[in-house]
Amino acid sequence: KMLRRVLCTVLFMGALPSLAEVSQGHISVVLLGATGDLAKKYLWQGLFQLYMDQVSSGHSFTFHGAALTAVEPGQRLMFDVLKKLACPPDESPNRCAVLKDQFLKLSQYHQLKTAENYTMLNREIEMLLHQEGLKEAGRLFYFSVPPFAYTEIARHINSSCRPPPGAWLRVVLEKPFGNDLESAQQLAAELRSFFREEEMYRVDHYLGKQAVAHILPFRDQNRQFLDPIWNRHHVERVEIVLKETVDAKGRISFYEQYGVIRDVLQNHLTEALMFLTMELPANVSRAEEVLQCKLQAFQSLRGLEKNSAVLGQYQAYASQVQEELQKAQDYISTTPTFAGVLIHSDSLRWEGVPFLLTSGKALDERVGYVRVLFRNRAYCTQSEALRDAGHSQCKAKQIIFYIGHGALNTPAVLVSRNLFRPVMPEGSWKEVVGQSDLHIFGQPLSDYYVYSPVKERDAYSVLISNIYHGRKDFFITTENLLASWAFWTPLLDSTSHQSLRLYPGGVENQHLLDFEMVSGEVAFTVAEPVELLNPSRLMPSDYRTIQSKYRQSPLVSAWAGDLISQLASDMEETASRTVARSGQFHLALSGGSSPVGLFQRLARHHYSFPWKHTHIWLVDERCVPLTDTESNFFSLHTHLLQSVRVPYFNVHPMPVHLNQRLCVEEDRGTEVYAKEIMALVANASFDLVLLGVGTDGHTASLFPQSENGLQGAQPVVLTESPVKPHQRMSLSLPLINKARQVFVLVVGKGKHDITTLLSRVGHEPRKWPVSGVSPSSGQLVWYVDYEALLG
Amino acid sequence: KMLRRVLCTVLFMGALPSLAEVSQGHISVVLLGATGDLAKKYLWQGLFQLYMDQVSSGHSFTFHGAALTAVEPGQRLMFDVLKKLACPPDESPNRCAVLKDQFLKLSQYHQLKTAENYTMLNREIEMLLHQEGLKEAGRLFYFSVPPFAYTEIARHINSSCRPPPGAWLRVVLEKPFGNDLESAQQLAAELRSFFREEEMYRVDHYLGKQAVAHILPFRDQNRQFLDPIWNRHHVERVEIVLKETVDAKGRISFYEQYGVIRDVLQNHLTEALMFLTMELPANVSRAEEVLQCKLQAFQSLRGLEKNSAVLGQYQAYASQVQEELQKAQDYISTTPTFAGVLIHSDSLRWEGVPFLLTSGKALDERVGYVRVLFRNRAYCTQSEALRDAGHSQCKAKQIIFYIGHGALNTPAVLVSRNLFRPVMPEGSWKEVVGQSDLHIFGQPLSDYYVYSPVKERDAYSVLISNIYHGRKDFFITTENLLASWAFWTPLLDSTSHQSLRLYPGGVENQHLLDFEMVSGEVAFTVAEPVELLNPSRLMPSDYRTIQSKYRQSPLVSAWAGDLISQLASDMEETASRTVARSGQFHLALSGGSSPVGLFQRLARHHYSFPWKHTHIWLVDERCVPLTDTESNFFSLHTHLLQSVRVPYFNVHPMPVHLNQRLCVEEDRGTEVYAKEIMALVANASFDLVLLGVGTDGHTASLFPQSENGLQGAQPVVLTESPVKPHQRMSLSLPLINKARQVFVLVVGKGKHDITTLLSRVGHEPRKWPVSGVSPSSGQLVWYVDYEALLG
Repeated sequence: KMLRRVLCTVLFMGALPSLAEVSQGHISVVLLGATGDLAKKYLWQGLFQLYMDQVSSGHSFTFHGAALTAVEPGQRLMFDVLKKLACPPDESPNRCAVLKDQFLKLSQYHQLKTAENYTMLNREIEMLLHQEGLKEAGRLFYFSVPPFAYTEIARHINSSCRPPPGAWLRVVLEKPFGNDLESAQQLAAELRSFFREEEMYRVDHYLGKQAVAHILPFRDQNRQFLDPIWNRHHVERVEIVLKETVDAKGRISFYEQYGVIRDVLQNHLTEALMFLTMELPANVSRAEEVLQCKLQAFQSLRGLEKNSAVLGQYQAYASQVQEELQKAQDYISTTPTFAGVLIHSDSLRWEGVPFLLTSGKALDERVGYVRVLFRNRAYCTQSEALRDAGHSQCKAKQIIFYIGHGALNTPAVLVSRNLFRPVMPEGSWKEVVGQSDLHIFGQPLSDYYVYSPVKERDAYSVLISNIYHGRKDFFITTENLLASWAFWTPLLDSTSHQSLRLYPGGVENQHLLDFEMVSGEVAFTVAEPVELLNPSRLMPSDYRTIQSKYRQSPLVSAWAGDLISQLASDMEETASRTVARSGQFHLALSGGSSPVGLFQRLARHHYSFPWKHTHIWLVDERCVPLTDTESNFFSLHTHLLQSVRVPYFNVHPMPVHLNQRLCVEEDRGTEVYAKEIMALVANASFDLVLLGVGTDGHTASLFPQSENGLQGAQPVVLTESPVKPHQRMSLSLPLINKARQVFVLVVGKGKHDITTLLSRVGHEPRKWPVSGVSPSSGQLVWYVDYEALLG
Repeated sequence: KMLRRVLCTVLFMGALPSLAEVSQGHISVVLLGATGDLAKKYLWQGLFQLYMDQVSSGHSFTFHGAALTAVEPGQRLMFDVLKKLACPPDESPNRCAVLKDQFLKLSQYHQLKTAENYTMLNREIEMLLHQEGLKEAGRLFYFSVPPFAYTEIARHINSSCRPPPGAWLRVVLEKPFGNDLESAQQLAAELRSFFREEEMYRVDHYLGKQAVAHILPFRDQNRQFLDPIWNRHHVERVEIVLKETVDAKGRISFYEQYGVIRDVLQNHLTEALMFLTMELPANVSRAEEVLQCKLQAFQSLRGLEKNSAVLGQYQAYASQVQEELQKAQDYISTTPTFAGVLIHSDSLRWEGVPFLLTSGKALDERVGYVRVLFRNRAYCTQSEALRDAGHSQCKAKQIIFYIGHGALNTPAVLVSRNLFRPVMPEGSWKEVVGQSDLHIFGQPLSDYYVYSPVKERDAYSVLISNIYHGRKDFFITTENLLASWAFWTPLLDSTSHQSLRLYPGGVENQHLLDFEMVSGEVAFTVAEPVELLNPSRLMPSDYRTIQSKYRQSPLVSAWAGDLISQLASDMEETASRTVARSGQFHLALSGGSSPVGLFQRLARHHYSFPWKHTHIWLVDERCVPLTDTESNFFSLHTHLLQSVRVPYFNVHPMPVHLNQRLCVEEDRGTEVYAKEIMALVANASFDLVLLGVGTDGHTASLFPQSENGLQGAQPVVLTESPVKPHQRMSLSLPLINKARQVFVLVVGKGKHDITTLLSRVGHEPRKWPVSGVSPSSGQLVWYVDYEALLG
């Protein structure tokens, strides 16, 4: 009856839709959590905006607020909110008042607690439609409820509230969508059992921010200018930043479980990152194409490690946690409220470009932006004083998607005038002209073309409109979500006990949170002030590697991670020294699992390693094709070679695969390799040989009692391993002992027994081949981790 | 008698040297060209300064001006100059007046024209010394004469004017020291026949500029700060600049032969470059160590090519040449008066860092500087407004050796305050404090630590003092000189007929001379203004690619640049389509010069190319080792493979080098390659084969009348080329014709005749092998540029 009354009002007013238009169908909107904070602050206003925008669209609407509260008080609470709905400044007050009145009449409150409540809601919707003779277009359920309630509600909707065939169902979900990859997968699996992928609209309200939403269209519309420069050759760095002045007070029970990375970086800033880094699909408004490009961009991200991030916590956070969560005095929260993260993409387009994601609470200003800074490649011959402001090629070149707040206090797109005048959609963005003394990102505002939205819109009203239009590309699909969690979870795990820099908050933070990039890692620029230091918190670097002797040779020992770092540094130093002396560096590497960590460390942290002048040789190889995952070379390629620039000619895999067969004596692979060594390595004396040790005392592929390789003149030999694949090729002990330097890496508890044994035995290569490693004129160094050394 | 009179005066004055001190020896200074411009402007003043500084040193002096002019007028001319000698501001006027008087008395003029004149001079010196009972310490001959006179004078000095054993001979030579490597070598050889290396002091007066002379000491004294940052990881770029406002008017007869590169870059700016890039010797004041490090730095410089430089000529130069050299109206000078050069060093320390050398006449300001700009690696969390001026890690970091003139108008050393406070020698450099509104290199002067010389000294007086002290490290040795010419001569040769950008001169130049770096080359930033444009010169983008037919197959035609872009795009599209279909893409590439541009285009502009799934095969190869610069694979590696990420396993160079020998039939390289193709390429049908065409109609390495490869079952063959290296390996025509797609690239005027011929002939592979390219079930597309197509 209520609907009929409204429809009559509408008809009498003339300016509003006719029945013919109404016949395009009816939409029922159900807002779950209708009296919660988000609903009060944004969602009802967004729904009212939708109604104002779409009242003449041909659809009719009803709005159903729902919560656990009983009908009586719930209704009162809800209508208190509805009465306060604001009229947008660009709407005529008269029309808005009439529409607001109608909106109130079209809205009603429901208690949704039991299965019966849902059945009842469904029946009421059906009855209404039947009475008015309306066709149903769709139902929209907006979940503005805590995530633990999702499954229950989803089950009810699926079983009782699905619209009839032909009408759509859209459920809108608000973050958090899990806490890490596992929980997100679990939640996704549950939701998938109730809804089809296309029915789910996961909100990241950042995608409703006008500047963020415009990144892809901007790239699309400005292809002609961006195509040549949107890549690692031209982009110097990218900053994606969300700074807040508020702290977490009052929201600690939520925040303490999430922290800044889960709250902001995993979702908002990551989405912006994807819009920047993904390849552009041919059609940027086709959600499926965008998604595929996005997923591919996720695949290209280099994995994060502990030192990819700097983390902080504002000083008052500790006492807020104690207060709001009733924790004891000595409770220490490890939740970061500030994070700076350095991200690299290994795509051809972006390789080497630093993407800096930064967010924090209790900072000195509220601002959000995405800043792309281009390299300066020009030399300006005319004097500084004469260079004209905006167009000098020597001024900084940047493109900024200004999300809001900060000095500009409006969403905006800024493009340096010495770059290009961007193409912007005329209806929705306007150029900002006029004078301003403002300096922004190091330059006067007049150095930029500045565009701001014709109509500034709240993110939620944008998103609600997108839901209405079925624009799935503004929402987070399950695949997208899981890809993001898969990317962030390793960092969350590895930093869960990392020390946090305490900061006072606000302008007092000064330089305390500035951070710097150093060979693929980040670190705070200024040292921790003494008064903030937690004395009981020791950093890995507080442990010194132990230097001592093992089997009469130098021993370096530390925890595995530190040991690998030390070994990698020592290798780089040896390499640089050798290249400086002789112009090239001949490095022979072992296979197996121990060196994988070393390879990764070398690939990611040693940019000064003289790869261009390094020759890579294999110490040993399994008789499998090089492309077999069991191949030592394959592992070396995967973990090291594909990330560094060793010239093709300097890579020397063992010729285990000749004439389409493996390690057949007649093919003389060992001779081929030996000749290659003789031809290239002066005196057949490698500059550095890296070895490991097996639990049986083998090294290289020289096993106890081996007939070949432990002595004799053959530099390269075929051997038999007790484990599969049995056939191996290996450098011989005499050849290894000609090296200038030999490093032996021994890592893990499993090596403790052999490590202990070897410390006691002499030179007995037939029993323990590694005991025969003894460079005749070179140096031997043992790198043994604490677990192998001490058990 | 004159000397005795002077010595008496000296003795009576008391404050001047005693005879005991005088007994340390006498120095005769002979200035050849005593009445010339340089002598008038700088040299006599420098000698007077030397006298003032050293009058109490224990040495006695006589000064001999010499020229071709007869004694009478010469003497008059010379004393006109001497009377105008200035007293330095820091000298007491009384003392200076007395010393000037003495200096005049110690100076005399000689005509030096004939051999007898030299013998006479020698005798006069000997007589003087004998009369006064003085020991001879040394003789200094300063050649301020044109270079064509060097040899003659040198011969006379060597044969008639050498001092007796025990006293030194120093001859001081002024540039130009030759015109290119050959002439410099010749001049050096001539001089070497008269003088020993240690007797020659070649002046580069830039080494007397205080800021330039301080580069090495600065690096030495600030090792602690510079060691970690003086390298490619921290330095963004280096600018070495000498801008002049004057033009060449009045000096055209000299300038027209030399131009800006020979006049300024080859000597002055190169010396500054060496001081920056060389490794620091343990002792920077030992000339021999410095020289060795410098020569090594020269070795590391990457060779210059035509596009390493942008060149210009001020507009009035043409008429000045016509006037001063009496040239005809239509005479066109190709002498550059402006140059911007991009230099790279391949040393481990500097690889990838751009060094920009710039100089020109008729520019908008007079200034000289060496600027080292460091990379910004920091992210500053605090807002821009709050960052403190000098120390923010986000401000530019630079070190500037300011040679003089310009906004500062004094020699200076500037170091950004966010870098470090430099160590400066207290006696000779003082910190400049106090306020200034000056902005310099993008920052207020207050952002720098600024040091200027305690006593500003003219370069020539510094150099003359260094000659007196025998400081050879301030002069250019023969090896140093020849290394520099060896570096610059290829650029001079390759640009000798390059078009010059005309510029109006002064502030009107505006942006006209700004230039940009693009992939190792430089180009002017703004296009040539229309009024200066040669109307017959059309830009490639003025033409659209033409699509048509050639030899019954599709033809794509355009100017070379556009054609290559189109081909690269088509290749990427084929690759992406093929990978989407079959998971991999088998691409066979030809060698030769035509595809180099294509390879570079693919490497630099095709970030979405599916390299990871692409297999690279060679169409043909020369029988040389793969690391030989003549190898097709080597070129492919240099221009493409080293920049993209093709997995090692997917790269298939032709096995021309087996068993340490090249293309020997018994080694069965062709079979090995054929088997590899069979094993990996489905049906031996390449997805794309890229071919070229030779002027004789050959394609791949299939030459006219070839016995192998034009038909028959052998997929890979050995062939003979009419040009060196004769031996080749090639895919056969039948194998090529199995490909799914064949692209033939034909570029350049030189290919016009064969292109025309081929358009008329049928299938005659024995005459023109390329006419046999006709994929049995694949597609053939011709990419022919306008020059090849239309001549």
